[in-house]
Amino acid sequence: MRSLPAFFTESQDTIARALDLMVPAPETQGASASQVIDAMRYTLLAPSKRVRAVVVLLAADLCGHPSRALPVACAIEAIHASSLILDDLPCMDDAPLRRGRPTVHTVYGEAIALLAAFGLLNEAYRHLARSYDAPLAARLTSLCADAVGLDGLVAGQAEDVLATDATLNFETLERIHRRKTGVLFSAAATAGALTAGGSAADVAALTAYAKNLGLAFQVVDDLLDVIGTPEETGKAARHDARKTTFVSFSGVDGARELAHELCRTATLALAPFGQRAARLGELADFVAARRL
Amino acid sequence: MRSLPAFFTESQDTIARALDLMVPAPETQGASASQVIDAMRYTLLAPSKRVRAVVVLLAADLCGHPSRALPVACAIEAIHASSLILDDLPCMDDAPLRRGRPTVHTVYGEAIALLAAFGLLNEAYRHLARSYDAPLAARLTSLCADAVGLDGLVAGQAEDVLATDATLNFETLERIHRRKTGVLFSAAATAGALTAGGSAADVAALTAYAKNLGLAFQVVDDLLDVIGTPEETGKAARHDARKTTFVSFSGVDGARELAHELCRTATLALAPFGQRAARLGELADFVAARRL
Repeated sequence: MRSLPAFFTESQDTIARALDLMVPAPETQGASASQVIDAMRYTLLAPSKRVRAVVVLLAADLCGHPSRALPVACAIEAIHASSLILDDLPCMDDAPLRRGRPTVHTVYGEAIALLAAFGLLNEAYRHLARSYDAPLAARLTSLCADAVGLDGLVAGQAEDVLATDATLNFETLERIHRRKTGVLFSAAATAGALTAGGSAADVAALTAYAKNLGLAFQVVDDLLDVIGTPEETGKAARHDARKTTFVSFSGVDGARELAHELCRTATLALAPFGQRAARLGELADFVAARRL
Repeated sequence: MRSLPAFFTESQDTIARALDLMVPAPETQGASASQVIDAMRYTLLAPSKRVRAVVVLLAADLCGHPSRALPVACAIEAIHASSLILDDLPCMDDAPLRRGRPTVHTVYGEAIALLAAFGLLNEAYRHLARSYDAPLAARLTSLCADAVGLDGLVAGQAEDVLATDATLNFETLERIHRRKTGVLFSAAATAGALTAGGSAADVAALTAYAKNLGLAFQVVDDLLDVIGTPEETGKAARHDARKTTFVSFSGVDGARELAHELCRTATLALAPFGQRAARLGELADFVAARRL
């Protein structure tokens, strides 16, 4: 597997430390609510690439003011973590493994897993309200809530669940993954730019980058489901066999070419920034090259 | 059953109309995401007393400026509705009936029910960010997120789930219900006061009122589970038989006395407002008298 650029691993460490403080460990094990806090931390702090949070930080850095990006990077990771808990539940994908470990509901039971998901979504908004001045908090809350809502994660996951065992056309498949993945990637890039006071043009370019990167990320996920091993992906192999995926649609070679094409398009969107966007370009190269 | 005061039914109509606009019906049935929107509306618009939202409106009215209370009243109802979906799921209380109708997961399936719950919590925050100026939006988001979070609904529900089949002491039972019910009632009263520019003293008195009212409401719920019929409660009777409740703790007469006592305490907290608090007093009388 291609190794991560150094700036990426440094950002990941910064994010992991901030997430650890966002949902602190219960003071006393066995205290009331300690199980649900443990389950939240189990998901939030699991080994992960934290690509969305890295996109927030790099977008803010690109706009010249990285110092205020970390809280919303954490909020977006918490939203993503909560969506993973839901995705893996028995009534959804019924997945045994995630990020190389047993899924939350297999460890803590379904009820606590569900409350942990709920709690993580809620902490995301709580964190925004507490970390930013009111105008920025309201703007970021609105941005994240749009990404989670009825043209975002919730809608994408609902359509995905109902589409299991059905044959989809490419348009529907693309819409599902835009909502399930692309929209939160775009929100991450926009959020980074907003915390840094980026211009409308900055936001537009970064959103175009992130939208394509998010879709590429999903195409690679579909590929890894077919050609990856559980050791590489942290998930059970061939778990998506009952679903229409980019691979079932375009074949392994077609999906690989699509991922490369999307990453090229992502990088092209950053042309106005010139060499300053090098790190986001490297990130796109890394996504395209994950075990490809 | 005691009939509702007229101002109560008028408020309920206002709230129902606003909730209908908060999550509009999908434009085309069968369109993507229409099922999850239907499930959200099924819960949000079900016949209900909407006590929490009425508390928001009456608290704002008491503080002299009712005109800005409606959006946060709707947000709090959406939060409450989302918590009911979770409570009723098979992995939680596994309830067949709610508000006189089959529970959401029995109609739409577990996956869509879960996404509807998630979507409703998310819409609550989206609605706050879009309906208020930034300082008030951030303040109300923080207030609601505290009420949902790790000293609120999520924590109370987690402890409640883990306590099924266990014998609880009174302190634990009281903590669970303070978090499951009292905290959101308090947030409702505080939110109403904040939208009306209420003073710190107003907020303190209203919070004391709502905390006691919320607990009384829960005690009456426990009583109705034992002595009510499904026609009266909209829920299956004796559903809580495996749980420690205020009735299993204090008996029917003891619980009835406790509910009256809590409502008296609630009303006393409003003494500084004098006659202006008459409606909130009437609301407490109504809660205490529900089929008692």
